[in-house]
Amino acid sequence: MKYGIAMFPSKMLQDKVNSYRKRYDPHYALIAPHITLKDPFEADENEVKSIISYIERIAAETDPITIDITKVSSFYPVNNVIYLKVEENSNLSALHDQLYSGPLEHEQPYNFVPHLTLGQKLSDDEHSDVLERLKMLDIRHSETIDRFQLLYQLDNGSWTVYETFRLKGRSGR
Amino acid sequence: MKYGIAMFPSKMLQDKVNSYRKRYDPHYALIAPHITLKDPFEADENEVKSIISYIERIAAETDPITIDITKVSSFYPVNNVIYLKVEENSNLSALHDQLYSGPLEHEQPYNFVPHLTLGQKLSDDEHSDVLERLKMLDIRHSETIDRFQLLYQLDNGSWTVYETFRLKGRSGR
Repeated sequence: MKYGIAMFPSKMLQDKVNSYRKRYDPHYALIAPHITLKDPFEADENEVKSIISYIERIAAETDPITIDITKVSSFYPVNNVIYLKVEENSNLSALHDQLYSGPLEHEQPYNFVPHLTLGQKLSDDEHSDVLERLKMLDIRHSETIDRFQLLYQLDNGSWTVYETFRLKGRSGR
Repeated sequence: MKYGIAMFPSKMLQDKVNSYRKRYDPHYALIAPHITLKDPFEADENEVKSIISYIERIAAETDPITIDITKVSSFYPVNNVIYLKVEENSNLSALHDQLYSGPLEHEQPYNFVPHLTLGQKLSDDEHSDVLERLKMLDIRHSETIDRFQLLYQLDNGSWTVYETFRLKGRSGR
């Protein structure tokens, strides 16, 4: 089965992001707005059991994470993805790194650039039009996230949550 | 915020159900195939904290639940919903009843008829055509489910998982 690990921000931020995704993201209906912590990977039922124990240990030691959003950006020219940039954050990077270690050691297809996708698979023209427009918005926002989720993908491409992990480090208890 | 409580069956069963929902269920993109354990209810952030503690205690005492599916049925004439009927099940009913007690005491809009929706909001003609066709399928299936989820609804009508509860009764440990 194909699994992934992601963090859902507050309802308010999800609603805001969805107002753009609705028009610009063909994956709008497949998963709620999220920060990907680990790209899709294959695992069988037994592997998942030990993966979950491993993640539980990480979550128990990790504090809730405050994210800061300051601007709209794009992965162009690598691909035409427009996103809300989550500012560099050593706590988030440390969590990401742990989710690529131990039983979760997998090759990383990209460097970790935490983000919330606003639009993707846009034509070059649409990409530059939309990016120019969205860059003018004031989207500064901060919030603290105290949980993340292990999900699996259905045959139609949508994602179902399998397990919730609470960040229980000192300040989350 | 509007919350609901649901149980997602295995990927295999979700994929099967989605193959019908894709054509017949306008809520196809809003949530994965599920058994509703508690209909949508309003709660604020503080209420949710005590609700989660309450549900955790229930989940810790409840064994994983085996569901049996034997036929396709419909809520017609109440409404044109076609579903996989989950056979009467005292464990599932007990869990449902607990999710309508304590801090979760709410009026029940319907009797509890556990089911997985295949289609809804069909015209009368389409409803009777589709129901007749699906009733001929052999859809017998059993499986054991060891978790359920608390979800909240976004402004676009879709549902995001907030918390996962594992059924940890004796056999789930």
